[in-house]
Amino acid sequence: MRTISWREESGGFVRLLDQTKLPQVSQEIDVKTHQELISAIKSLAVRGAPALGVAGALGVALIVKNSEIDGWSASARDSAIADLRSARPTAVNLAWGVDQALKVLGNGSAAVLARALEIADADAKANREMGIKGGDFLSKLLSHKSKSNQMRLLTHCNTGALATTEWGTALGVIRDLYERGLVSEVFADETRPLLQGSRLTAWELSQLNIPYRILPDGAAASAIFAGLIDAVLIGADRIAKNGDSANKIGSLAVAVAANAMKVPFFVVAPESTIDRSIATGADIEIEFRDDKEVTHFAGNPVAPAGSKTYNPAFDVTPARFITAIITEKQVYQPMNGESL
Amino acid sequence: MRTISWREESGGFVRLLDQTKLPQVSQEIDVKTHQELISAIKSLAVRGAPALGVAGALGVALIVKNSEIDGWSASARDSAIADLRSARPTAVNLAWGVDQALKVLGNGSAAVLARALEIADADAKANREMGIKGGDFLSKLLSHKSKSNQMRLLTHCNTGALATTEWGTALGVIRDLYERGLVSEVFADETRPLLQGSRLTAWELSQLNIPYRILPDGAAASAIFAGLIDAVLIGADRIAKNGDSANKIGSLAVAVAANAMKVPFFVVAPESTIDRSIATGADIEIEFRDDKEVTHFAGNPVAPAGSKTYNPAFDVTPARFITAIITEKQVYQPMNGESL
Repeated sequence: MRTISWREESGGFVRLLDQTKLPQVSQEIDVKTHQELISAIKSLAVRGAPALGVAGALGVALIVKNSEIDGWSASARDSAIADLRSARPTAVNLAWGVDQALKVLGNGSAAVLARALEIADADAKANREMGIKGGDFLSKLLSHKSKSNQMRLLTHCNTGALATTEWGTALGVIRDLYERGLVSEVFADETRPLLQGSRLTAWELSQLNIPYRILPDGAAASAIFAGLIDAVLIGADRIAKNGDSANKIGSLAVAVAANAMKVPFFVVAPESTIDRSIATGADIEIEFRDDKEVTHFAGNPVAPAGSKTYNPAFDVTPARFITAIITEKQVYQPMNGESL
Repeated sequence: MRTISWREESGGFVRLLDQTKLPQVSQEIDVKTHQELISAIKSLAVRGAPALGVAGALGVALIVKNSEIDGWSASARDSAIADLRSARPTAVNLAWGVDQALKVLGNGSAAVLARALEIADADAKANREMGIKGGDFLSKLLSHKSKSNQMRLLTHCNTGALATTEWGTALGVIRDLYERGLVSEVFADETRPLLQGSRLTAWELSQLNIPYRILPDGAAASAIFAGLIDAVLIGADRIAKNGDSANKIGSLAVAVAANAMKVPFFVVAPESTIDRSIATGADIEIEFRDDKEVTHFAGNPVAPAGSKTYNPAFDVTPARFITAIITEKQVYQPMNGESL
């Protein structure tokens, strides 16, 4: 199953698995306009940095096709592309995917679509490669951990097939290690406020028959201090040149706790998530989201009416807390001062 | 308003504000049997270490009264008291309150009730005193923080009037500082899984007109690293002799982040929360609670059916992360190796 794909019917459109409805309902959305795609991105119907890269590229294909059919002006087309490119600010992959597709804009809609589909295939391939690279690295690093050699791994948010084209980044490494017989259990942070951990990661783990537990984000430090965790693996939405990594809110707290207990902490992401134009994480723009994500649950209030919130979608983990950053190309160790 | 009180009508019973229904519904429960009281304690209709101390003492008064009226055997009475005493294992105050009331058991139900009411009054007084002590200590320590001298304080779970007889412990210090004009804003962790922060602390802050924001627990580290927090204040459910402090799950993650950024971290609790019979936090029994608290929300599943969880109700913050422990009697600084 692919989370996001191009369908040729009715002149061509983007099909998405609606991640806001999982795990109760597995429902696809057919996206035929860029407004619908932007709305799907903002509501997190499609999410995860690598999947957003593919959404950006396929979105440009959709816009170019619609602009050709409906005879839009170049400025209307460019304005639609700009809106798509900035639909979410933190994950670099969305803008990256848009920019990749734009490189062949002069060659017409078929060329743009072909480029977008290449990006989707390349993402799937990169995911599989970082899974193996991470699997190799972790199995060597942690081989002394227990008699059975089996690890208990903690992850935050969702970095599986749902966050990518297929396979996954951090969850892809976990899956690779599981297939080697090296994982006894996965601790999945529920990931407030939108519960990507309990809704999406737990769903993927249950589909894969990998043993797991869900924990409140605040319990991760307790699990780490209790000696229940051999390594932490997370994804990333943007990585600065020095290794500072933006990821889903709550990642930083886990990194600090892991560091305090010398539990290795890994970031797994494609090369396209590295933004070498920024020196450090201080330059990463953090998206703030609606109060209602925190004050309401399924439409019902859980806080006094009118409560304000502090609701950043991401935080930045300083490179000094990161044991290694694993991409499809190599394993970086920014903790040792290595630049990317 | 008192969260828990004794009512003389119908032969006498315990009246509780049902904290599971706040902030939407403010509803009292009249508790006439020890089974009802134990059930209210387990469901967290009444919660918070100091309030549990009072509930323990009033519960013994209720049991002794009922045993006199209904002619229970001594063993039936003692078994009811033992069940009450162990209804929740982590907060030392529940057992402490039961034991205080038991000291006058030989003098009959009126004496037991009088002792329980004394405990409630003493708790209210102790809270007010630790508020002032903490207010004095923090206002001195943080007087250089900003031009306006106003602090931004972060707290976790609920430690206000609802968690005590009245006034509050950590929230009592915050309230004291606010009345001195020294607080610009309170960051209230929502406190998963049961949202005592957004449901109870935010409600108390809104009633007191103290400006606040609610944040996901995982966002506390982000706020601390962003320099938005001048100090953290939490309560405690049990404090070991060396200062290790058990408190609501999620406290440890905040303590580690605060420590990493040199943000002072305070525990505020009555002397009755200090358990000098245990040397360190390793001896504190941690209560684990039902999977459904994490996998369901208001009865609706948010995770795949059958998901297991890691759901400890408390974690233990090592003394080395605690700037000071503030009680009604004194300010301890276990970080410096001071024993309690």
